[in-house]
Amino acid sequence: MTNVHIAATGTALPGKPVDNTTLATMLGVSKEWIDLFVGTRTRYFGWDPATGEVRGSLADLCAEAAAQAVRASGLGLADIEFLVLATATPDTLLPTTATEVADRLGLDHLPVYQIQAGCSGAVQALDLGRGLILGGRHAGLVIGGDVTHRFLSPRQDAAKIPTGELVNYVLFGDGAGAAVLTAEPEGERIAVRSVLNSWTGRGRSPGQLLDWYGTTDRDSDRPMLAEDYKAIEEHVPPIASEILWELLGGLGWSLDDIGFLLPPQLSERMTARIVDRLPQGPARNISCVADTGNTGNALPFLQLDRLVPELGEGDRAVGLCVESSRWIRAGFALEKV
Amino acid sequence: MTNVHIAATGTALPGKPVDNTTLATMLGVSKEWIDLFVGTRTRYFGWDPATGEVRGSLADLCAEAAAQAVRASGLGLADIEFLVLATATPDTLLPTTATEVADRLGLDHLPVYQIQAGCSGAVQALDLGRGLILGGRHAGLVIGGDVTHRFLSPRQDAAKIPTGELVNYVLFGDGAGAAVLTAEPEGERIAVRSVLNSWTGRGRSPGQLLDWYGTTDRDSDRPMLAEDYKAIEEHVPPIASEILWELLGGLGWSLDDIGFLLPPQLSERMTARIVDRLPQGPARNISCVADTGNTGNALPFLQLDRLVPELGEGDRAVGLCVESSRWIRAGFALEKV
Repeated sequence: MTNVHIAATGTALPGKPVDNTTLATMLGVSKEWIDLFVGTRTRYFGWDPATGEVRGSLADLCAEAAAQAVRASGLGLADIEFLVLATATPDTLLPTTATEVADRLGLDHLPVYQIQAGCSGAVQALDLGRGLILGGRHAGLVIGGDVTHRFLSPRQDAAKIPTGELVNYVLFGDGAGAAVLTAEPEGERIAVRSVLNSWTGRGRSPGQLLDWYGTTDRDSDRPMLAEDYKAIEEHVPPIASEILWELLGGLGWSLDDIGFLLPPQLSERMTARIVDRLPQGPARNISCVADTGNTGNALPFLQLDRLVPELGEGDRAVGLCVESSRWIRAGFALEKV
Repeated sequence: MTNVHIAATGTALPGKPVDNTTLATMLGVSKEWIDLFVGTRTRYFGWDPATGEVRGSLADLCAEAAAQAVRASGLGLADIEFLVLATATPDTLLPTTATEVADRLGLDHLPVYQIQAGCSGAVQALDLGRGLILGGRHAGLVIGGDVTHRFLSPRQDAAKIPTGELVNYVLFGDGAGAAVLTAEPEGERIAVRSVLNSWTGRGRSPGQLLDWYGTTDRDSDRPMLAEDYKAIEEHVPPIASEILWELLGGLGWSLDDIGFLLPPQLSERMTARIVDRLPQGPARNISCVADTGNTGNALPFLQLDRLVPELGEGDRAVGLCVESSRWIRAGFALEKV
């Protein structure tokens, strides 16, 4: 039986961190409101908070993170046999950002997939990449990233931004992350013991909406970016616990077996609430959202990148993701070998 | 060794066929120009050609095609263990159209993937679905579809539409198609002998662009939908031949072994040109583009749906797709068992 391993990770965050004081000034709100509401301290934007000028695309970030992961893996480009990229915010619909990233990396003649997803996309990419390795490929790249410039920009009339919209400015950030997967243990030698990816949204309203315009409907006034925070607050914590139990149960692991836990990263406040409701064990939490903001499809890779240097031989870790857009349960279990 | 089979197919085309006379009147061009330029006779729109009113979404079409495929397969919903949907034109970015379709079908607790792709998306979905079956799943749905309403609508100033934009009105149509894949032969008992999915766009310019707006950039005047017809005319025919040879070579099949060929479906004229340049064998061509227009991710499923009733035991068929957006080579080889 082939195993699947994470050989290396890479990340990319654009520009300098934007702190709550800067953001508060930009939005015409108090820093204290941001601190209280999301708890997130900094985030990164691929656009200039002063002018709105877009300086970096999703492809820029994903290519940077992926190149870093390949370098760190010790593998050559010729070893990379597939690329899977997950995002909610592609640079264009066609060509896909995944093919642009493949081109920038110098890859050619390989399958390149782009997954449309929200918070569960990184795990979906890991799930598909794992399947490709189990199907006979030796190594490949999985990547996740998101950018905010099509929905957020500095506005002259900051005072008039409705609260529901302000929330998006303080929640989200730009970023990308990547991992090199291998069949044989290489580099960091982290075995992927299990991946969970299960849609469980039947008959349930979406918790998040992200819409787009074409040429014929760009004057429409329909909502384009919305979150149902009440539903998220109510449902995400119990779902996170269920994912944890399902992963542990499937592997015959107990809470005491896991040294590290990567909890869902919606905002610093929400992550704290989720962690409080999770069954308590000895695991150390690995979070990044307070520093990076909610970077969507990048988040689990940013957490993995923080996890890797901490993992010693035999250490086990579990990652949890809940996609509230339509209630996807996602997670993974790792073991350093 | 597990095999992968197509148990059934389903399709959905909205409303009544729109002929070239109707389209010519709507666009203020001559019917003869449409006949000559694309050769396509009819297409279907999920919007009213008279008023532009949108009557059907991508989810509507995909759910209809998928439900038809499940019914025809003889399997129950409880047998469906995954759903993969490919599109270039999702209804929203989040939640994904794939999760909406899963909900409408009454599915729950299964992995649901959405692939962002152009003409190769149906084959990418087949490729991933095949991998999921080979990885141990027993049955699942693969779906492809596209809709045009965000880029095309009836315009008062039809006379002023630039030719480059007119072309999109006469090329594209709305549609969806689906197939049920199974590990054991069921229903139509068509074995998937091979799937090819290879990105080969390194250093090459895209042949097709499809862009989107968010809230911050919807006043932009950048191009949103464009094709490089010269590049497509030059490169697609030889690539189609290469895909055919690669599929045959991989299986040890000769041209004489294949009874049916599903050529790329860009327009009736382009398909005729591609077919003229393909190596000539006894295979019958199965095309749909003259009746349906270019329905993007739906096309190979629409062709499959026409192929199924023609296939006798032992018959072999090969399908070819070239995604010009960034030069993806895709195809599949089938055999009735």
